[in-house]
Amino acid sequence: MKAVYRFGHGRADGSAHMKDILGGKGANLAEMTNIGLPVPAGFTISTAVSVHYMRHGKLPEKLKADVEKGLQHIERIMGRKFGDPADPLLLSVRSGAKVSMPGMMDTVLNLGLNDQTVGGLARASGNPRFAWDSYRRFVQTYGDVVMGLKPDSEEERDPFEVQIDKLKRRSRVNYDYELSVDDLKALVRAFKTLIRRRTGQSFPTEPEKQLWCAIEAVFRSWNNERAAIYRRMNNIPDDWGTAVNVMAMVFGNMGDDSGTGVAFTRDPATGKNRFFGEFLVNAQGEDVVAGVRTPEPIANLRKSMPDVYAGLISVRNKLESHYRDIQDIEFTIERGRLFILQTRTGKRTGFASVRIALEMMAEGLITQDEAMLRIEPDAITHLLQPVFDPEEKRQVIADRGMLARGLPAGPGAASGRIYFTAEAVEKAKAKDPDRDYILVREETSPEDIKGMRAASGILTSRGGMTSHAALVARQMGKVCVVGCTDIEIDYAKRKMNVARRKFNEGDHISVDGFMGEVMPGQVKTKPSEVIQVLVDKTLKPTHAPVYRRFTRLMRWADKVRRLRIRANADQPDQAAAAVALGAEGIGLCRTEHMFFGEGRINKFRAMILATSEKERRAALSKLLPLQRNDFEKIFRVMAGREVTIRTLDPPLHEFLPHDEDEIHAAAKTLGVPMARLRQRARELREANPMLGNRGCRLGITFPEITEMQARAIFEAACNVKESGIDVRPEVMIPLVSDVVELTRQRAVVDGVAEQVFREKGLRIPFLVGTMIEVPRAALTADRIAREAEFFSFGTNDLTQMTYGFSRDDVGAFLPEYFKRGILRRDPFASLDEDGVGSLVKRGIILGRRTRPGLKVGICGEHGGDPESVQFCHRADLDYVSCSPYRIPVARLAAAQAVLLERSRAAQPAGGIGVSL
Amino acid sequence: MKAVYRFGHGRADGSAHMKDILGGKGANLAEMTNIGLPVPAGFTISTAVSVHYMRHGKLPEKLKADVEKGLQHIERIMGRKFGDPADPLLLSVRSGAKVSMPGMMDTVLNLGLNDQTVGGLARASGNPRFAWDSYRRFVQTYGDVVMGLKPDSEEERDPFEVQIDKLKRRSRVNYDYELSVDDLKALVRAFKTLIRRRTGQSFPTEPEKQLWCAIEAVFRSWNNERAAIYRRMNNIPDDWGTAVNVMAMVFGNMGDDSGTGVAFTRDPATGKNRFFGEFLVNAQGEDVVAGVRTPEPIANLRKSMPDVYAGLISVRNKLESHYRDIQDIEFTIERGRLFILQTRTGKRTGFASVRIALEMMAEGLITQDEAMLRIEPDAITHLLQPVFDPEEKRQVIADRGMLARGLPAGPGAASGRIYFTAEAVEKAKAKDPDRDYILVREETSPEDIKGMRAASGILTSRGGMTSHAALVARQMGKVCVVGCTDIEIDYAKRKMNVARRKFNEGDHISVDGFMGEVMPGQVKTKPSEVIQVLVDKTLKPTHAPVYRRFTRLMRWADKVRRLRIRANADQPDQAAAAVALGAEGIGLCRTEHMFFGEGRINKFRAMILATSEKERRAALSKLLPLQRNDFEKIFRVMAGREVTIRTLDPPLHEFLPHDEDEIHAAAKTLGVPMARLRQRARELREANPMLGNRGCRLGITFPEITEMQARAIFEAACNVKESGIDVRPEVMIPLVSDVVELTRQRAVVDGVAEQVFREKGLRIPFLVGTMIEVPRAALTADRIAREAEFFSFGTNDLTQMTYGFSRDDVGAFLPEYFKRGILRRDPFASLDEDGVGSLVKRGIILGRRTRPGLKVGICGEHGGDPESVQFCHRADLDYVSCSPYRIPVARLAAAQAVLLERSRAAQPAGGIGVSL
Repeated sequence: MKAVYRFGHGRADGSAHMKDILGGKGANLAEMTNIGLPVPAGFTISTAVSVHYMRHGKLPEKLKADVEKGLQHIERIMGRKFGDPADPLLLSVRSGAKVSMPGMMDTVLNLGLNDQTVGGLARASGNPRFAWDSYRRFVQTYGDVVMGLKPDSEEERDPFEVQIDKLKRRSRVNYDYELSVDDLKALVRAFKTLIRRRTGQSFPTEPEKQLWCAIEAVFRSWNNERAAIYRRMNNIPDDWGTAVNVMAMVFGNMGDDSGTGVAFTRDPATGKNRFFGEFLVNAQGEDVVAGVRTPEPIANLRKSMPDVYAGLISVRNKLESHYRDIQDIEFTIERGRLFILQTRTGKRTGFASVRIALEMMAEGLITQDEAMLRIEPDAITHLLQPVFDPEEKRQVIADRGMLARGLPAGPGAASGRIYFTAEAVEKAKAKDPDRDYILVREETSPEDIKGMRAASGILTSRGGMTSHAALVARQMGKVCVVGCTDIEIDYAKRKMNVARRKFNEGDHISVDGFMGEVMPGQVKTKPSEVIQVLVDKTLKPTHAPVYRRFTRLMRWADKVRRLRIRANADQPDQAAAAVALGAEGIGLCRTEHMFFGEGRINKFRAMILATSEKERRAALSKLLPLQRNDFEKIFRVMAGREVTIRTLDPPLHEFLPHDEDEIHAAAKTLGVPMARLRQRARELREANPMLGNRGCRLGITFPEITEMQARAIFEAACNVKESGIDVRPEVMIPLVSDVVELTRQRAVVDGVAEQVFREKGLRIPFLVGTMIEVPRAALTADRIAREAEFFSFGTNDLTQMTYGFSRDDVGAFLPEYFKRGILRRDPFASLDEDGVGSLVKRGIILGRRTRPGLKVGICGEHGGDPESVQFCHRADLDYVSCSPYRIPVARLAAAQAVLLERSRAAQPAGGIGVSL
Repeated sequence: MKAVYRFGHGRADGSAHMKDILGGKGANLAEMTNIGLPVPAGFTISTAVSVHYMRHGKLPEKLKADVEKGLQHIERIMGRKFGDPADPLLLSVRSGAKVSMPGMMDTVLNLGLNDQTVGGLARASGNPRFAWDSYRRFVQTYGDVVMGLKPDSEEERDPFEVQIDKLKRRSRVNYDYELSVDDLKALVRAFKTLIRRRTGQSFPTEPEKQLWCAIEAVFRSWNNERAAIYRRMNNIPDDWGTAVNVMAMVFGNMGDDSGTGVAFTRDPATGKNRFFGEFLVNAQGEDVVAGVRTPEPIANLRKSMPDVYAGLISVRNKLESHYRDIQDIEFTIERGRLFILQTRTGKRTGFASVRIALEMMAEGLITQDEAMLRIEPDAITHLLQPVFDPEEKRQVIADRGMLARGLPAGPGAASGRIYFTAEAVEKAKAKDPDRDYILVREETSPEDIKGMRAASGILTSRGGMTSHAALVARQMGKVCVVGCTDIEIDYAKRKMNVARRKFNEGDHISVDGFMGEVMPGQVKTKPSEVIQVLVDKTLKPTHAPVYRRFTRLMRWADKVRRLRIRANADQPDQAAAAVALGAEGIGLCRTEHMFFGEGRINKFRAMILATSEKERRAALSKLLPLQRNDFEKIFRVMAGREVTIRTLDPPLHEFLPHDEDEIHAAAKTLGVPMARLRQRARELREANPMLGNRGCRLGITFPEITEMQARAIFEAACNVKESGIDVRPEVMIPLVSDVVELTRQRAVVDGVAEQVFREKGLRIPFLVGTMIEVPRAALTADRIAREAEFFSFGTNDLTQMTYGFSRDDVGAFLPEYFKRGILRRDPFASLDEDGVGSLVKRGIILGRRTRPGLKVGICGEHGGDPESVQFCHRADLDYVSCSPYRIPVARLAAAQAVLLERSRAAQPAGGIGVSL
């Protein structure tokens, strides 16, 4: 079997199709060479050699001759000799597996330097410092990677850096780049001594030996610990092995006819079809990274090096027509000669993602299906939220620094004055409604709902991606960053400390909910075109190109997808926004948020304080008209679409006041002693509220609550129906763990419906179903389906119970789990297919065994997560329900699920892609 | 098909084998008749008629003629005519399904009374008041059951009782029995009027019509709501239907040659083989219940009615030889003639249960297998605990009243002074160790362990059968009653209120942990013979007949069972008791209880307060010798038996001090500011600790904890092994939800083991395995078995997560669930086979698919529950582990599982029993 694949001078032994053998990087170097891009010459040693190495612990004998021939191939094309003291050919040796494992394996650069060739490099570059610094780096890397020099105590960390620090102290300089040529020479000597002393072996001066050992070291690095963990986390088989790429080094610092740069084939921020990039004359890649010199725009090359620029334009055109996607390239100009060192698919904003896909389709580069598959569904959220002006944000961070980072829980950008209680935000908003406010809390609770609504952004120091703040913010479409652990709030003094900076109530901060970033002071935002047109109706489509692209994409997606998309919404305005964004129904209307409204909470508290069924019924009768009115409004907005209403779910203590002021106020309004309120709160206190008296357990203990809610639903439905609008209510019983719970609650709902229909002289078709959110419900779904006309998987709670993870408390260990590679993804953000998913699948199979064609949906936060949506498609759900602002994401993800299914059906052996 | 089966005068159409057709009661009436017992004549209408009635909504036409013949049969034997105004035959009409459904269906007594026959009854009994009161009751029952008279408003409850109350007010009397004959006559008239007015129908005077309608009403009652709920709760099919038994009424109040009584064929308290019972002359069953007259011992009959007594003795002998078990009979003597109205298997204490089974076997009445199956395994616990003297307890309740009832969480009897904090009990015990103390708390926490150990009994006002108090008490073998909601504790004033009675610290109460009863003051207890012989070694077997019976039974059980039995124990004395009681190993040694000991808790707290790994390691190194010492002691006691040690499980905040005094003391000992302790407690506070940072999550976040524990285990194992005692450690990682957690923790354990073995120059075989207590672990058990050498199902937590029930909080709704028939059994006490059981079975199948022969056990509280033990046997577990005092229960239950399996194999169609 062939072990070495050469590339260079327009011809390569391999191609992009050979990733299995050449790895991703090798295949692409071959591909670029084949399509005529000026890639430095080199060769790739196949993954088969890696497998041999793993099996036998050494490289195959015949490889030596092949590498020898490969080396000659490079020398021939590059016109330099390896080891030539006058003008040496230098090499890079890099790993490259079938899929990218960035930074996990080892790399050696500038290979071929020794005490002789370093002089040649110094003369050729006219830059002895560069030559010696390259040599110094090479010895350092080689000593670490190839010769295995390791720290000899925990304190030492990096023994080479210890030497550098020593030298810097002696030479009285602060930075590496201040070291003189003599300093660097001294360092090279010191490094070699260190290597000899620690490893017992001399640093090899013969370039061939350097090369051979480096190749072996890179193969060896496939099995280092961090690579093994990475593979486990990303489900990459251990037996694939890596390829090794050996390529000529080229240098951009050989004079004013040299340089280095990066470029995108289109604008990665806006998606506009223009060549975009920057470069530095007489520089190496490291100079760009060091930030000492400011790069020039790529267009300047047109004047200074017109031939090179023409070459780059030709490269750009070749890349786009060949890869059919935006490419991000690295190039080096060595003495007027252009080399492309790398090309990869360009990262881009959501705006650019949509624009590029649509325009490439218009240009005939890709098909409509490809355009849809090309867009990461999450990118759509960028189009729905206010965003910071990118230039201004960059400037603010440069001027004032970043303040803190947290988890990006609600996409968008918000800038405003900070307040530390929901009431304070409400008051400030009431006083000056034109300003923007940021609510900053350790965490939020249902009582903060009104303040959260008044705020433009929400920032919490605790909680995860599915904490109360995150859930409610996403549902409200608010910008939100959670788990920002650097923030310390002093509620009493109304101020916060962030990394030694102090902020008082009313100070400005800016929150980027896409990135999870917090900045001090104000940053200008611009509103979403899509929202302005569809929801706010303040902008005409003709003035909204982003909106027009969005609608076109959504139209395509809707034609393709099979999954139906519903919204989680419990307010008429949320419902209206959901419909505008494409919701085909409401999958989860929580009824408890309704009780926190003005003049309602104390009516609800009166119900909680009742000591007899009679008192409780009296209190409930006051809530009935309010709740009926809520439902009427939602039914009107949804006009004939299905509305799934969940009966009361949270534990009652969430509704009671907590701090002394609130208790005082509530006691006064309710006309009860404060002690009574405190006592009731104590009675209702629970060790684990998540697993306590909530969901249908409340409705079973107090059937009159379910009765009131059912009456409100059916009276509202009749009233709306009477006004000529169609209504399709679905009543959903939460937290069922045994079919008998559902039997009982269903009897209450059916009974009330019958009564109301008789009273109103009108019948409305409705369904009664249940959440499947307790493992036992999924395990006994065959029985539950006897009583349930639909299932809705509540995957938030199902995840909590299947894993035994309280989402309010995972902050204490999940970060550690991610860091140590125990978990790959947050199971609250993306559905755990192995555990939770197996319960979902089992629940569906058992449920439909009893009731064929049972309607099944999902209403956890996973309904808005693209990967989870694809799972739901595969698991044959009927619909997903998510927060209104995730609906477009779900629409696209559902379409992609169909497209992927088709492409799998068409290419059972796996498709062949050409992207990097 | 035959519809009516007659019985009477020594001959019956049916027999005990015909329960399907005659129901349990009918089959037994036939059986008793056949074996020559003097049963009043009657007939049974078969369940087939019930099925016909359900299907067609009416009784079959030909039934009328059959009933007519049946009636003639009764008249012939009883020598009275139905409807005869002079000396009327009266009838009872009762339901009777295949299995007993006590009180669920309807019964009509005294049928045949009307304005004429009532006079005959008055004359025959010489007691007009009795006759009219019987008539009054008959009309009342008939109006309700047959004619369907119901309350017409929620307030009314029972319309007949309203009339009675009205009459009592008019006649100025307080009790029903004070009403005169004229009052009763007036009531009968008023009832009839009420019936006519409400139902539009007259009360039927013709006895035949009464009979026919009553039969139909009893058949109808099969489908009333409470019967339907009962069937659902007890898995009784709806389509079985009930039989109806029509039988002659006999009266014990016909003069001094009449009477009524109850008797047991052996002493139900001690099991002694002597006839035992009591009777009242010239009385009816109701008189016994009313408690106005004091019954006489049965032996008195020998003098007053020698023939009747001889008859009874003959009945006793026939019953015992026929039913081969202790029987509980009801008899009536009507004018010197003995009638047996009912016989059923006698309820008995644990002492009686064992003695009767063993003696009946010795007498040749039953086989050894039958003797083992005859004993309810839970009854064994009576033999292991101190008990109250039954006479004295009865007297105390009579004199001082019962104080409160709760859940019987820890069997036994304790009487002592009450204290409201663990410290107070400890102090009192230290001052006066000879007295007994009862710890009374709302609920207990791990900090209370020492106080619980010092107490003889534990009483809590909150929590369920698996609350902390219940679990620890059972493990310690302490008497415990939990969830005693009537108790209100005022910790500040150190007193409690119970139903308006006040108790101060130091007052006496008595707690019966078998019955869940609490009595005021002292009640004398006597210690368990078995424990005195086996554990305390203070009694010789020769002086301990109860012990000798116990051992004989256990020996039989051990020969039969396949399941191995281990103990949950984490102290040397517990381990020793467990071995004495038959433990074959330790299935769960919790390591956290060890940290609460003297001089340890603050060392552990120092570990929690550590801010760096280095500090944490320093603190852990102080705990190492203590923990090693603990393990050494346990290994020595267990001498070569398997010991499964679980690494640290509970959340860290459980170890921090809570109240101000404790914080102050801890801060002083630890030399840190109180604020630091408070802050750390705040940091560790969790919304749902049950689903928080605990179990292996701790060991992963701080691997040095697992390291220290592993080192303590293996050093202890080596030390004990060196002293010539065999050691078999099994390290168990808790709360695993993903195999990678186990991979990591296992690597730590294996690494430490290797180190220790090298250091000690000694190798000890050991296993590393995991708890399966998170649903996801069961669902992904195939992967987990790659790393786990054994599984131990932690069914406590598995139940919590599968149901979504926090065992600390279920008190708020589980009682309601039982009351409403939603749950049949506490899933924490008896394993839920449908949900949790399906996860257990799936986990075993998946696990053994990866690792055939995988060792599997259970270490939840269910390991000591007989039904759950049988499930474990069927699910093919290798062992169950339970608290030491449950081991004999588990041994017997495991033997019964085998015996039942054999009898199922031998009689695939279901065996035929003759017990009632």
